[in-house]
Amino acid sequence: MDCCVIPLRHGGLSLVQTTDFFYPLVEDPYMMGRIACANVLSDLYAMGITECDNMLMLLSVSQKMNEKDRERVMPLMIEGFRDAAEEGGTSVTGGQTVVNPWIIVGGVASVVCQPNEFIMPDGAVPGDVLVLTKPLGTQVAVNAHQWLDQPERWNKIKLVVSKEEVKEAYQEAMFSMATLNRTAAGLMHKFQAHAATDVTGFGLLGHANNLAAQQKNDVAFVIHNLPIIAKMAAVSKACGKLFNLIQGTSAETSGGLLMCLPREQAAKFCSEMKSQRAATGGQGGAWIIGIVEKGDRRARIIDKPRIIEVPPRGREATSPATSPATSPNLA
Amino acid sequence: MDCCVIPLRHGGLSLVQTTDFFYPLVEDPYMMGRIACANVLSDLYAMGITECDNMLMLLSVSQKMNEKDRERVMPLMIEGFRDAAEEGGTSVTGGQTVVNPWIIVGGVASVVCQPNEFIMPDGAVPGDVLVLTKPLGTQVAVNAHQWLDQPERWNKIKLVVSKEEVKEAYQEAMFSMATLNRTAAGLMHKFQAHAATDVTGFGLLGHANNLAAQQKNDVAFVIHNLPIIAKMAAVSKACGKLFNLIQGTSAETSGGLLMCLPREQAAKFCSEMKSQRAATGGQGGAWIIGIVEKGDRRARIIDKPRIIEVPPRGREATSPATSPATSPNLA
Repeated sequence: MDCCVIPLRHGGLSLVQTTDFFYPLVEDPYMMGRIACANVLSDLYAMGITECDNMLMLLSVSQKMNEKDRERVMPLMIEGFRDAAEEGGTSVTGGQTVVNPWIIVGGVASVVCQPNEFIMPDGAVPGDVLVLTKPLGTQVAVNAHQWLDQPERWNKIKLVVSKEEVKEAYQEAMFSMATLNRTAAGLMHKFQAHAATDVTGFGLLGHANNLAAQQKNDVAFVIHNLPIIAKMAAVSKACGKLFNLIQGTSAETSGGLLMCLPREQAAKFCSEMKSQRAATGGQGGAWIIGIVEKGDRRARIIDKPRIIEVPPRGREATSPATSPATSPNLA
Repeated sequence: MDCCVIPLRHGGLSLVQTTDFFYPLVEDPYMMGRIACANVLSDLYAMGITECDNMLMLLSVSQKMNEKDRERVMPLMIEGFRDAAEEGGTSVTGGQTVVNPWIIVGGVASVVCQPNEFIMPDGAVPGDVLVLTKPLGTQVAVNAHQWLDQPERWNKIKLVVSKEEVKEAYQEAMFSMATLNRTAAGLMHKFQAHAATDVTGFGLLGHANNLAAQQKNDVAFVIHNLPIIAKMAAVSKACGKLFNLIQGTSAETSGGLLMCLPREQAAKFCSEMKSQRAATGGQGGAWIIGIVEKGDRRARIIDKPRIIEVPPRGREATSPATSPATSPNLA
């Protein structure tokens, strides 16, 4: 499970908690703070929980940074984290900071819930439809963007992608990672989701397998479609076995929710995701990517899945996650 | 405050949480795990909370360790952490591990409380007595022990302490840091403590000042006595301004609770601490170290405070915190 669920001594309530921390992967410290927060909260959202009672922030400041850089970068990272927490209807009270060779940013999200507030991720039934709420390819986009300055690496992918396309994919990945899965969590209740998880370090197939393994019923997940940030499928292919994005094992950060929905609800879920995102100035939505059938609690991607190229929102797009213009560079 | 206290949406309950993580400071990984856990829980205990609903463990594995060392060290550290959690009546469910240049160990402690389960640290009144539940000098002992192998450092303190005394002080510090403040937390209710905090990185005076600053009444704390692990006062003096143990600013790890007790309760508290510790095979107790008077919410140590030399429990002492004989060396 994405969270731990601890039954409490008080009237049927449960404490649901999760923690996550990791190293910066985008250059913009404000956005990095937002992504770290979205990534922590995502574990609650995967259980259909839309509220969070408290967040703690975990930070390590790099000993290698000079004081000036530290004083510019760390407050922006904290601001990004706090802003995302606020967007999630919660706030950051408490935490701990240490000095370390590397920057670390992460947190803890905790909520005390009644039983009807969360959805245990074990109720998929044959006939359900698999839905994914963010495009794949964040790791590929982040890496390709770093290669813009590394001619040897760049030469391997320049036949399949332009510099402009990489920059747009990177922006799209950054905004996507910073987007909370909260809307999706709320709609899980409305559309009676049977199970969900969030897609992160193990890639789509890794998390699909984990989710399948937890099901009460004898089910298997079959994935037909892969929504991927535009051009990143081609970049992954050009890199041989480095990412394996099409095979479903490329790591994602703060990825979307993968959920099992009743067949008759899936299309409505996707269209409401799209309209709710649009209403708050965001973009994207959700994609039907496969089906649940009778099986042995495993997941697979079919041979030659359909690649859905998800267009970037463009650099001019305004987003709730736009960073202050003064952000210094983390890299 | 040592914890954050978040009012919940459910019937008067509060979520009380704290987090802490840091770098190893003793060589024994099992004991390091215990100390890290005791240190996290200590923030709850400082609020008179004796229960903990869940702990998360935060770990970073050192990239500089070879795989063999890693596989010996990390499981022992985790075992120590879990054992201390179990002693605290709680368990570890969840957490996160990353690879990092340095080892990090820490955790998150969370509990959902009714209002009568915790004591807000702001009720000291003139006439109260200050009590401390563990001796000072852990940092001095840990450093002096490292200097056994550094002749240049050792030469500076060898006139005031023997190698045997340093080894005993180090053992005492290690056992003391690994001891939970849970007994003290329970007795805070029985003896009507008015406020408490735990003594860690800012040293006794730093935390006394923080506690004084939070008080509702116009009070000041005056400290007359300093219980210190035997010989460590002399070592600190021999080191000039390096530690400032007598001045109250030497850092402690997983130190005792500093609390304000009604005058008529303090002696009874100390004697019950001692007998409860003895009953569970432990040692030590509590010391009256000063008084609360009318004042401007600050703390001070008098000129020439009385040093109480706390004898080490000896290397043969059995302790609930004894580590497995096979522990490899962390340093």
